[in-house]
Amino acid sequence: MPNGAQALIQTLADAGIKVCFTNPGTSEMHFVAALDDEPRMRAVLTLFEGVATGAADGYARMAGKPAATLLHLGCGLGNGLANLHNARKGKVPIVNIVGDHATYHVPLDAQLQSDIETVARNVSPGFVRTSQRTAELARDAVAAIAAALGPPGQVATLILPADVSWGEGGVPCPPPAPPAPKRVDTARIEAIAGALRGRGKTALLLGGRALRESELLAAAKIAARSGAKLLAEVFPTRLERGAGLPPVERVAYLAELAGVQLGELDHLVLVDAKAPVSFFAYPGKPSELVPARCTVHTLAAPDEDVVGSLEALVRALGAEAEPPALQPARRPDRPRGRLTAEKVCKAIGHLMPERAIVIDEAITSGLMLPMMTAGCPRHDLITLTGGAIGQGLPNAIGAAIACPERPVIALIGDGTAMYTIQALWTMARESLDVTAVIFANASYSVLNVELERVGAERIGPKARSQLDLTAPALDFARLAQGMGVHATRADTAEDFCHAFEYALAMPGPHLIEAVIPESLSGAKRRMLPHVLRALPRLPAPIARALKRKLAP
Amino acid sequence: MPNGAQALIQTLADAGIKVCFTNPGTSEMHFVAALDDEPRMRAVLTLFEGVATGAADGYARMAGKPAATLLHLGCGLGNGLANLHNARKGKVPIVNIVGDHATYHVPLDAQLQSDIETVARNVSPGFVRTSQRTAELARDAVAAIAAALGPPGQVATLILPADVSWGEGGVPCPPPAPPAPKRVDTARIEAIAGALRGRGKTALLLGGRALRESELLAAAKIAARSGAKLLAEVFPTRLERGAGLPPVERVAYLAELAGVQLGELDHLVLVDAKAPVSFFAYPGKPSELVPARCTVHTLAAPDEDVVGSLEALVRALGAEAEPPALQPARRPDRPRGRLTAEKVCKAIGHLMPERAIVIDEAITSGLMLPMMTAGCPRHDLITLTGGAIGQGLPNAIGAAIACPERPVIALIGDGTAMYTIQALWTMARESLDVTAVIFANASYSVLNVELERVGAERIGPKARSQLDLTAPALDFARLAQGMGVHATRADTAEDFCHAFEYALAMPGPHLIEAVIPESLSGAKRRMLPHVLRALPRLPAPIARALKRKLAP
Repeated sequence: MPNGAQALIQTLADAGIKVCFTNPGTSEMHFVAALDDEPRMRAVLTLFEGVATGAADGYARMAGKPAATLLHLGCGLGNGLANLHNARKGKVPIVNIVGDHATYHVPLDAQLQSDIETVARNVSPGFVRTSQRTAELARDAVAAIAAALGPPGQVATLILPADVSWGEGGVPCPPPAPPAPKRVDTARIEAIAGALRGRGKTALLLGGRALRESELLAAAKIAARSGAKLLAEVFPTRLERGAGLPPVERVAYLAELAGVQLGELDHLVLVDAKAPVSFFAYPGKPSELVPARCTVHTLAAPDEDVVGSLEALVRALGAEAEPPALQPARRPDRPRGRLTAEKVCKAIGHLMPERAIVIDEAITSGLMLPMMTAGCPRHDLITLTGGAIGQGLPNAIGAAIACPERPVIALIGDGTAMYTIQALWTMARESLDVTAVIFANASYSVLNVELERVGAERIGPKARSQLDLTAPALDFARLAQGMGVHATRADTAEDFCHAFEYALAMPGPHLIEAVIPESLSGAKRRMLPHVLRALPRLPAPIARALKRKLAP
Repeated sequence: MPNGAQALIQTLADAGIKVCFTNPGTSEMHFVAALDDEPRMRAVLTLFEGVATGAADGYARMAGKPAATLLHLGCGLGNGLANLHNARKGKVPIVNIVGDHATYHVPLDAQLQSDIETVARNVSPGFVRTSQRTAELARDAVAAIAAALGPPGQVATLILPADVSWGEGGVPCPPPAPPAPKRVDTARIEAIAGALRGRGKTALLLGGRALRESELLAAAKIAARSGAKLLAEVFPTRLERGAGLPPVERVAYLAELAGVQLGELDHLVLVDAKAPVSFFAYPGKPSELVPARCTVHTLAAPDEDVVGSLEALVRALGAEAEPPALQPARRPDRPRGRLTAEKVCKAIGHLMPERAIVIDEAITSGLMLPMMTAGCPRHDLITLTGGAIGQGLPNAIGAAIACPERPVIALIGDGTAMYTIQALWTMARESLDVTAVIFANASYSVLNVELERVGAERIGPKARSQLDLTAPALDFARLAQGMGVHATRADTAEDFCHAFEYALAMPGPHLIEAVIPESLSGAKRRMLPHVLRALPRLPAPIARALKRKLAP
């Protein structure tokens, strides 16, 4: 009869969970020892828990099924929390396994003792369970898997005491029933069809699973028939885009721009998305972006049947034969001269290979990316769903493991890259085909913008230095080489293109440090708040033109 | 009238809190802007929140007063959690400031929204407060400072909503009353004096504030008079030691060895310490280390007057004039030949400068450190109080800022170093006199030991690879250079000594990668569980001799 850990790993594998991203300690040693008893389970070691959780997130986004994590006690969970937060906000399924002391050791308050459930509730509000008996461990695991799958997908935390893991008498369990999204009733579909047939301005806001090909095609038919605009949430979990797919406009990060996008709407139809609110609050500005007179409809909530509801709406509108607007193929020219953030985006648009997985955590430096890559060969885009930076490099690991035959391109800001820089080591260890591009502008550039926006008027040298990464300059090529990853620096567009082509052609991970000036010059940055303040008061066509210029 | 942030920072400075370790985001921009209004406040930027919290921990251990942190929302707190845990377990005061969304933005569930208080309770069970009004913010801060100071010291978390920070009408507050430890009553002193005068075997277990010079001298007089053994908790927050100070034997990390240290005791007297338990639980082994027949006495609990109670006990025993045993000055010879972990420890003992601050997070590689440095010039030793690795490099930042005139030596395992490697950048940015020694054995060596100890019998290749850091090898010299820190590698004792002397002589931070073989060979490692199992059954003198050999 297997021990607890053996029964657990067999149960995970039976349910199709075949990758575990790990950073174990002593209390997880029986789980580690049991890995060799289950050939279907791959264990991927990371040097930091935030890499493990971010990799599990990236894996699930691309594999369409969860991975497991293996973390060490409350502190390991703390280290992994930020990327579990991003997964939670992206409705991504993860079976988050956290080792704990033996049940009888907990009351003794040893050095590493802390309240794990307390921390876990932050990212796993829907499922936290401390398994209490070896015989029930696999059953608890099946409950965790079912909770993770949703819908909506979520982070399910299973806490695994060491004695429950090492105990004899584990009982493997069959997998849970497949997830069953709730059906949407006809009355709701009809009501929304009625609003779309009416005279007001309308838009569909697509999020979550509604940004995949079949859902996008259905939405595009609805748009073609009704004249509704197609919007996507600001930070999609996974967006299928590129030539031949329906294009969709993302809600802008800057609330003032989003206000222009949404300001004229009479009806907004949510599809696996929530009504947009501003990312942060700003003094004297509203946080809700949808105008009061706009009626918000929910076509499908996150626990409901997204594709079924879209197809029903297509039928209700008689749009089955409507030709959807599709993105034509086009690429920008090859850039030349001194490198800038815009030229990096242009080079990526010029060179993006077929079936790429693009991870965008470039923050301000990535502003031009959506435009430059819109007509590239079809690709998947993964973004920072929860706003907790340090997601991109770990996501790249998971995506590359989920899709070993596809190139992964991770676009990362320099400040951002440093939160989980340890990810590079796992990329080298697993020989993953990841090309990481670091936008090195030596600044928390977005905070320079935000410092102006929050209305902090006098900005002194101490404040400015809090956003400055120039002294000392970070040398990402050396950092990568120190972790076994091939790396180069580029400060011209020619060098960047060359390095990017080389990285795509050669197997294994590569890092390119793109040395660029600050994304927004001081003058532009100081002008920004004034422009943004004026935006809602400008005539709509001018505001739209400005908006396109500011955030294409 | 100041805004909330300005009143807060002024109140912190008035209370003597003059350093803030930061990793801010948008919701903290008004705090950042207010830094320039308070010349007494130094803001030290880190690239990762775990560096900020670990630096605040190291600062308070050496400065004897808290620093503040500045973290960004629940995710920033998550990233900082592990080192706050270490501070909590070490009873170290920290004023932990976590920015939050504006109060009216919270219900909108924006991307970065999460339940901060939930996470904070893990490390701040004694004080978590979300400030609700600008006019009361400084008062809330004073309550947080008072809670942090204790005694016992603790992590007090003050959550700072953006609108409370930017609001007008901040009111600075005067500092809290100084901490007032509870007096210990005479009857308790007399009872303990009686036990120490009796015929049984006795020991004092010193922890927390009892490991500083005046407390150690009082304890040594008690020991000299009564014959009691002087023990220190396994991982001291701050231990003053070296030539001229009373030596004290630390309880061993390995439970089996600790059992030998404690096994013959009739009375154990706790002084700002708790009765020792094993670090982890192991199948079939007890977690409690104090034998059942031993009576445990508490001379001073963590909230009581430690030095007063020790002095009272000295008087009760009539030991005022007793000469305490003091550590004679002595140093090991200069090591030669191929580098090993033991030779690194020997070199450090041979070369340690006056008034050094030594941070020991070398895990298995540091086994010989206590013996090799026992007779060095007096120094402070800081250890991993909560067992959450990644403490050492951040601690070094804080210690160097607290004591700019003293050399800081950080001894770090290679696996351990990677959790908070970003600390090197802040060391370079602040030009701190830190010498970081990385014990590069390319392994989570302690887990190799633990894997054998937990009784996992068949250890396969997948399990073993989870503890292996050889592929790819980490190049710490390059990692340091990538963050602006001067670095070298050494694989002979001669090179190491040379590099160490150079690092101590030159200003600013230095890193030495000490390339060493695995601390315990495979054969020794496999033998260890058997030796440990036999230990408690051996005659006491043989067990003691073995213990000295295994963990000197």
